[in-house]
Amino acid sequence: MEIKSVEKGQDYVGFLFIKSQMTKTATNGSRYFNMVLNDANFDEIDAKKWDVKPEDEAIFINGKLVKIKGKVQEFNNRLQLIVNKMRLVNENDEVSIDDYIETVPVDTDEMIGYVNDAIDDFTNKDIKDITQRIFNDHIACLSYFPAAKKHHHAIKGGLLYHTYSMLRIGKSLAGIYTFINKDLLYAGIILHDIGKINEMVSDENGSVSDYTPEGKLLGHITQEIVDLEIVGKELGTDPECLMLLKHMILSHHYQPEYGSPKKPMFPEAELLHHIDMIDARMYTMEQALGRVEPGTFTEPNWSLDGISLYHRSFE
Amino acid sequence: MEIKSVEKGQDYVGFLFIKSQMTKTATNGSRYFNMVLNDANFDEIDAKKWDVKPEDEAIFINGKLVKIKGKVQEFNNRLQLIVNKMRLVNENDEVSIDDYIETVPVDTDEMIGYVNDAIDDFTNKDIKDITQRIFNDHIACLSYFPAAKKHHHAIKGGLLYHTYSMLRIGKSLAGIYTFINKDLLYAGIILHDIGKINEMVSDENGSVSDYTPEGKLLGHITQEIVDLEIVGKELGTDPECLMLLKHMILSHHYQPEYGSPKKPMFPEAELLHHIDMIDARMYTMEQALGRVEPGTFTEPNWSLDGISLYHRSFE
Amino acid sequence: MEIKSVEKGQDYVGFLFIKSQMTKTATNGSRYFNMVLNDANFDEIDAKKWDVKPEDEAIFINGKLVKIKGKVQEFNNRLQLIVNKMRLVNENDEVSIDDYIETVPVDTDEMIGYVNDAIDDFTNKDIKDITQRIFNDHIACLSYFPAAKKHHHAIKGGLLYHTYSMLRIGKSLAGIYTFINKDLLYAGIILHDIGKINEMVSDENGSVSDYTPEGKLLGHITQEIVDLEIVGKELGTDPECLMLLKHMILSHHYQPEYGSPKKPMFPEAELLHHIDMIDARMYTMEQALGRVEPGTFTEPNWSLDGISLYHRSFE
Amino acid sequence: MEIKSVEKGQDYVGFLFIKSQMTKTATNGSRYFNMVLNDANFDEIDAKKWDVKPEDEAIFINGKLVKIKGKVQEFNNRLQLIVNKMRLVNENDEVSIDDYIETVPVDTDEMIGYVNDAIDDFTNKDIKDITQRIFNDHIACLSYFPAAKKHHHAIKGGLLYHTYSMLRIGKSLAGIYTFINKDLLYAGIILHDIGKINEMVSDENGSVSDYTPEGKLLGHITQEIVDLEIVGKELGTDPECLMLLKHMILSHHYQPEYGSPKKPMFPEAELLHHIDMIDARMYTMEQALGRVEPGTFTEPNWSLDGISLYHRSFE
Amino acid sequence: MEIKSVEKGQDYVGFLFIKSQMTKTATNGSRYFNMVLNDANFDEIDAKKWDVKPEDEAIFINGKLVKIKGKVQEFNNRLQLIVNKMRLVNENDEVSIDDYIETVPVDTDEMIGYVNDAIDDFTNKDIKDITQRIFNDHIACLSYFPAAKKHHHAIKGGLLYHTYSMLRIGKSLAGIYTFINKDLLYAGIILHDIGKINEMVSDENGSVSDYTPEGKLLGHITQEIVDLEIVGKELGTDPECLMLLKHMILSHHYQPEYGSPKKPMFPEAELLHHIDMIDARMYTMEQALGRVEPGTFTEPNWSLDGISLYHRSFE
Amino acid sequence: MEIKSVEKGQDYVGFLFIKSQMTKTATNGSRYFNMVLNDANFDEIDAKKWDVKPEDEAIFINGKLVKIKGKVQEFNNRLQLIVNKMRLVNENDEVSIDDYIETVPVDTDEMIGYVNDAIDDFTNKDIKDITQRIFNDHIACLSYFPAAKKHHHAIKGGLLYHTYSMLRIGKSLAGIYTFINKDLLYAGIILHDIGKINEMVSDENGSVSDYTPEGKLLGHITQEIVDLEIVGKELGTDPECLMLLKHMILSHHYQPEYGSPKKPMFPEAELLHHIDMIDARMYTMEQALGRVEPGTFTEPNWSLDGISLYHRSFE
Repeated sequence: MEIKSVEKGQDYVGFLFIKSQMTKTATNGSRYFNMVLNDANFDEIDAKKWDVKPEDEAIFINGKLVKIKGKVQEFNNRLQLIVNKMRLVNENDEVSIDDYIETVPVDTDEMIGYVNDAIDDFTNKDIKDITQRIFNDHIACLSYFPAAKKHHHAIKGGLLYHTYSMLRIGKSLAGIYTFINKDLLYAGIILHDIGKINEMVSDENGSVSDYTPEGKLLGHITQEIVDLEIVGKELGTDPECLMLLKHMILSHHYQPEYGSPKKPMFPEAELLHHIDMIDARMYTMEQALGRVEPGTFTEPNWSLDGISLYHRSFE
Repeated sequence: MEIKSVEKGQDYVGFLFIKSQMTKTATNGSRYFNMVLNDANFDEIDAKKWDVKPEDEAIFINGKLVKIKGKVQEFNNRLQLIVNKMRLVNENDEVSIDDYIETVPVDTDEMIGYVNDAIDDFTNKDIKDITQRIFNDHIACLSYFPAAKKHHHAIKGGLLYHTYSMLRIGKSLAGIYTFINKDLLYAGIILHDIGKINEMVSDENGSVSDYTPEGKLLGHITQEIVDLEIVGKELGTDPECLMLLKHMILSHHYQPEYGSPKKPMFPEAELLHHIDMIDARMYTMEQALGRVEPGTFTEPNWSLDGISLYHRSFE
Repeated sequence: MEIKSVEKGQDYVGFLFIKSQMTKTATNGSRYFNMVLNDANFDEIDAKKWDVKPEDEAIFINGKLVKIKGKVQEFNNRLQLIVNKMRLVNENDEVSIDDYIETVPVDTDEMIGYVNDAIDDFTNKDIKDITQRIFNDHIACLSYFPAAKKHHHAIKGGLLYHTYSMLRIGKSLAGIYTFINKDLLYAGIILHDIGKINEMVSDENGSVSDYTPEGKLLGHITQEIVDLEIVGKELGTDPECLMLLKHMILSHHYQPEYGSPKKPMFPEAELLHHIDMIDARMYTMEQALGRVEPGTFTEPNWSLDGISLYHRSFE
Repeated sequence: MEIKSVEKGQDYVGFLFIKSQMTKTATNGSRYFNMVLNDANFDEIDAKKWDVKPEDEAIFINGKLVKIKGKVQEFNNRLQLIVNKMRLVNENDEVSIDDYIETVPVDTDEMIGYVNDAIDDFTNKDIKDITQRIFNDHIACLSYFPAAKKHHHAIKGGLLYHTYSMLRIGKSLAGIYTFINKDLLYAGIILHDIGKINEMVSDENGSVSDYTPEGKLLGHITQEIVDLEIVGKELGTDPECLMLLKHMILSHHYQPEYGSPKKPMFPEAELLHHIDMIDARMYTMEQALGRVEPGTFTEPNWSLDGISLYHRSFE
Repeated sequence: MEIKSVEKGQDYVGFLFIKSQMTKTATNGSRYFNMVLNDANFDEIDAKKWDVKPEDEAIFINGKLVKIKGKVQEFNNRLQLIVNKMRLVNENDEVSIDDYIETVPVDTDEMIGYVNDAIDDFTNKDIKDITQRIFNDHIACLSYFPAAKKHHHAIKGGLLYHTYSMLRIGKSLAGIYTFINKDLLYAGIILHDIGKINEMVSDENGSVSDYTPEGKLLGHITQEIVDLEIVGKELGTDPECLMLLKHMILSHHYQPEYGSPKKPMFPEAELLHHIDMIDARMYTMEQALGRVEPGTFTEPNWSLDGISLYHRSFE
Repeated sequence: MEIKSVEKGQDYVGFLFIKSQMTKTATNGSRYFNMVLNDANFDEIDAKKWDVKPEDEAIFINGKLVKIKGKVQEFNNRLQLIVNKMRLVNENDEVSIDDYIETVPVDTDEMIGYVNDAIDDFTNKDIKDITQRIFNDHIACLSYFPAAKKHHHAIKGGLLYHTYSMLRIGKSLAGIYTFINKDLLYAGIILHDIGKINEMVSDENGSVSDYTPEGKLLGHITQEIVDLEIVGKELGTDPECLMLLKHMILSHHYQPEYGSPKKPMFPEAELLHHIDMIDARMYTMEQALGRVEPGTFTEPNWSLDGISLYHRSFE
């Protein structure tokens, strides 16, 4: 039973994934679940289960796949699912939890290998060492971290996939604009958003519940610059290399109002910004166009300055 | 004798190229030349020659290489060359006029061949025919037209070279974002600035003296859309293809204040904008960095939002 | 029974006009109508009729006047009418459908005559011919087309009425600023919004259901410029006249962010913009003030930069 | 000898008008004149006369027409006239001072009569009395006051002429938008810029030397509102009428950044803004176009958002 | 029973204060109350009482403390209280109405004394007299007037408290920047927002129901400037002093888009702006932080440019 | 002989201070000095000395007081002094070099003592230790570092004086807003601009020749945050304290376009911004007003948004 086709008043039976669950206490003292559930299309629905037992609270947690019977209601102009029965899936259910977690289309190891191969080819030892070190420091999180809470690549492994796609573009452009320093460009690509790991709190399914306090007060750009300084000091990185890497992080959002107090001041920093934009936009557009028929327009998309995209009707 | 090292008060002897010449009449009725001259480094200097004879006016015109004796003076805070003697180069002079006209680093035929090969590979016949037709209509001008009056690629052949470089990027990106329509992207790249041929007046050395009246009143974006309509109607181009090409032209400057009333509404239009930006920026940065020493900053650059570029000190 | 005074829970009996109707299928397979209905004050209400029969779908279509029995409910914080019974009006009903379609206060033929008289007086043959031709090409639609989907003059015949009022202003101003070219100004007025006929989809009651795909991707300004080019080429219009008319269309929204990449560059283009603004604003203000008592303020009006209008208390 | 055709190094003989004169003391204690002079085309030139005698200082003052012999030099990249001889015109000179003072094309008395006739027709006594009173209070200054220091109508009588032209437009629009209150609109037109008489210091030739201190600290909008209050209190003007007039003054620049903290909140205030814009723009455009040939463009005009105007080549 | 902890469906019994009450007529002709009630924490809830008797309308008015029995429902996504029984408090209730009206932490007389002492110390007689006079004219309203309808200091006595706090800052800064004129600064502080008394309609509990018509059309800045002029004329205030005071009022919002057409043009006007900002911001921040736990963030706050505040976790 | 009264063509004899000197080589191989000199009023003049001897280059360096004979000329519309003779001052000259270096009005030791006393009073040991350590690290530079290259406090010792004045304001405000944490506010004040020592290159007279490369690429805000991190890690500063200090540095320019990617998110950060603004503005205003007579206006001041200040005419 697909979430996208349920309607108000309908009975629901099917497998759903607990994307987030919060237990709350009603005025009468009873406990209930406030949940966001998704199906295998990754469509989501709000859900409530009233009068939950203490033992349930430990079982029905984020990241579990469950079978549910319930009824669709409307609340505050949104559909929500009132859960009557709920159990964990078992081996007889012939469903796989992996089908319920949206993830990227390339294997993690392949992407990590691709990045590592790129770093291995760096000829500037200072840039190579600091890039390798910071990449390795975050490698565990990269297997699941998304690139954003809501916008582009907001899925499991999205941050690494975004980095990997950008690196592919970087390699093409380095072949066309041969006056640039490849190591600097690739290092900038690999490190540009890695500060997000300290900016956001993500579970292992790539779902971001919130920003960290430091993320809110400083932001991933400042956080990553500070990180570069600490590691650079430790490794004795050449001061100019370290300064240029910090500038690339600082300037990659381009506009002050998007968080970059300085604009790109050398070609590798400029390219980093455009590559980041291209990959974020193409991801968002591909997703949005996949939801509408050829020959029609999408809803206005707030990650794309509010425009409606047109899905062309020919191949 | 290089223009970049001349100083006030100095005598000058050397070969210079007449980039532009205007003959004027002084109060006393005598005629004089107001000229812009450049040397083989493409550095420029203002120049005046007083009391010119009627026969000189037909000889010393735009696009001629001349040998000059004169004196450097300062006028209105700028250096200018007061020409005492001036003659056309002759076969004994051992200089080649081609060294005095700044041009692009790739051969015109090679670039035209590259574009034509791309068009040949189009699978959509409607897009192929209209692109081929408009490209052919402008092919004569493309051998010398610059991409701008003052900003990026403002040299002989700059418009074609800009198109060629963008097409190279387009091919790379089409390999990474496989959901896009290559024909549409490549057609957009080939046609996006071709309206500039009607917007500006360029001589055969790629020097733009002015904008056309229609260029000032309508601009190359509107001019090219109108051109597409006329040709499309004649060829019977599929209406959707024609509409999408018009939208790509319309939206490729992205911001309303830069001339695009609509933002890109499909991925090929979005990519076109970014590719255009990248190529314009990389050209401008490479030029600007070539004028300063490693480890130093350029002057604030008004084609780059007023920033000073840093020329890194390592390879 | 007036829509403006109905309340939640009330029974409703009365004549209403079907402004728009969409038939949908409920989860249980039954069919229902989603409608917008208006009364003779042109106030509107959402309405639903459940379980409609197949034959009803062909009868109760947009543009029909019907007698309705139903009940007012609240849904999503808006009132809606649940229709129990519904039939077409008949000759005994003593109501006239014309009272239910909001229209302009001047007769269509009178307005068309006024425009044609103005064109007849043009002294410039090129401007006269192209204006006459394009006006005639759209004359059928002008009897009902509104000037906008939601903003000013969004009623049957609104586009023509807007043109007619602007032409009246144009004639006054031409008497005060005698250095301008009247033909150019009047032609600009007559043609400035005629591209909207290709930008929006309107039924014969002046109700706009949507924008056309080309309207969304290009907009009426670009659409009308392309139209001018095609007709101008066909008629052999003098190039300068054609260029100036295209500029007037291009610049009449004045600001880039409202769709004009060029600002008005001659007096007739400048006047066109101001006359357009005046007529749009005066219409909107008259409508808004008509809904509140003297001595009070209207709600903030989003067509007027969010201001509340004051209705003066004296004559 | 016309100023527009003089060149550096040339001798000058001719009649010129002293637009402004300041006497200064050189380091060696001698006295000299710093002047701005204009010819009968109203073109201006800076001028100096060295070593002036004490008796000259009382003779060669602002507003005198003089015969001059001198030499044109260049100073700070501008032409200036070094005066050798200088005398007042006498009855034999066959020149009229009136030809050297730029003024408006309608007679002062005719314009004042036109305004007074309009006021006489007011039906609202409160609006009539306060308008008549304030207009009369400033009538002496209106015979020469310009509408601005540098922008539109910056000539003798410009303020009254601007008011007169606006009133003509107002009367036309009142015939088209009959729901408005004519008295309110006309009063707003008559009073909207009259505060400029306290904002700027003008001599009797309509030349503004500076703003008043109060003009700089408060501006003519605030100054006129305060004036309305004082007169309104004295006359016992109906509070609503007074409030609406104050709002019209306050909002007539429309944008906060141009000095209006409130936007127009009723139709008469809205119309006042547009009529003001139209008349200022048409005046500026007519002036600018008069200086260039048909078929050409003006220089960028800073009173018109920096655009170049096109002078059409046909009648 | 505290409003902040009530939930949908709950019965409510307790004392509440009638912050605002409007009587309306239902479709069936019966009368009902629409109310906003608050408890002793100053938390608010919407409330309705159906079928009220004529005599009730005169009893249950704004500013009364009542005992209520009712039920909490949800309507339009907000909680509202449906009142079943309602009576005025009596002497047995052991509640004090003063606990239900949010007020400032300093005694009115103390604040008025503080302001008067400051004025008494003025050495400039002109500034002293006009400040004293205008302050005295408004002294009755200052005992309850809030400083805003919704933003900072929107409580009983808030306007005076804001003035008092600003004056304390002013005195500190006058000790540091000794080149300023204290009288001017203090007068600016005392008068800067006093025009709000004519801009808003407040009851004696400091609750603002609406803006006055003049407040909407002119705003408190213009209103206070006009007031200064009238009083200054009457007292014969020195013109420069009066002009400077008017400028301080005019410029104290600093930005045109916040209502100041002129920026501060002398140090006392500049300081006035910053002191106003500091006191408004500190008040708002203290209030917002008081509602969240240490170590957490507040909701985005629209009086603070939409930021979330962080409540530090240490003392 | 005062610089402010010299005129073109005049002979000059007097003592001047070498603010900056650069030796250059003319086309003929001779060496010359390009200098900026100032007198005891701190007014400056450009100067040139032709044909300097090799031994002179080591003698006439920045920071020397010299006696000069020369002539005033005009070059590029500015006065410049052509030096004929030049020697160092000697003991007979009865001038003191200290009179030629503009400095702050409070003794360095007194200001350092004031800051140290404030730090000694901190009750939070983490904030105290890191503030003390960073302040001590920069104490040598603080005796001469200016607060800016051109704007406010651009004199010897200006950075410390700015800090000192802000700390005085901070102490006043901490007495009024008692809910804030004093240590945090004072630490923010002491550290907020200390990164400028790494952003700019200043000589010991407080004259800034340029920004450092890192200053251009990163800016003092980012530089100081990185510094805080390094020292904080070394001292083991409490993470929350360190995070809040970094946020205060990050947000103290308030607007993104002035370099702050985050707005202040707690009261101490908010106050820091306003105190910084007040002190910078008051310094600039006091300087500017000191140059004009009472009752007049200054030139437009680009450090103050282009406004002209009014110097009041009464005490």
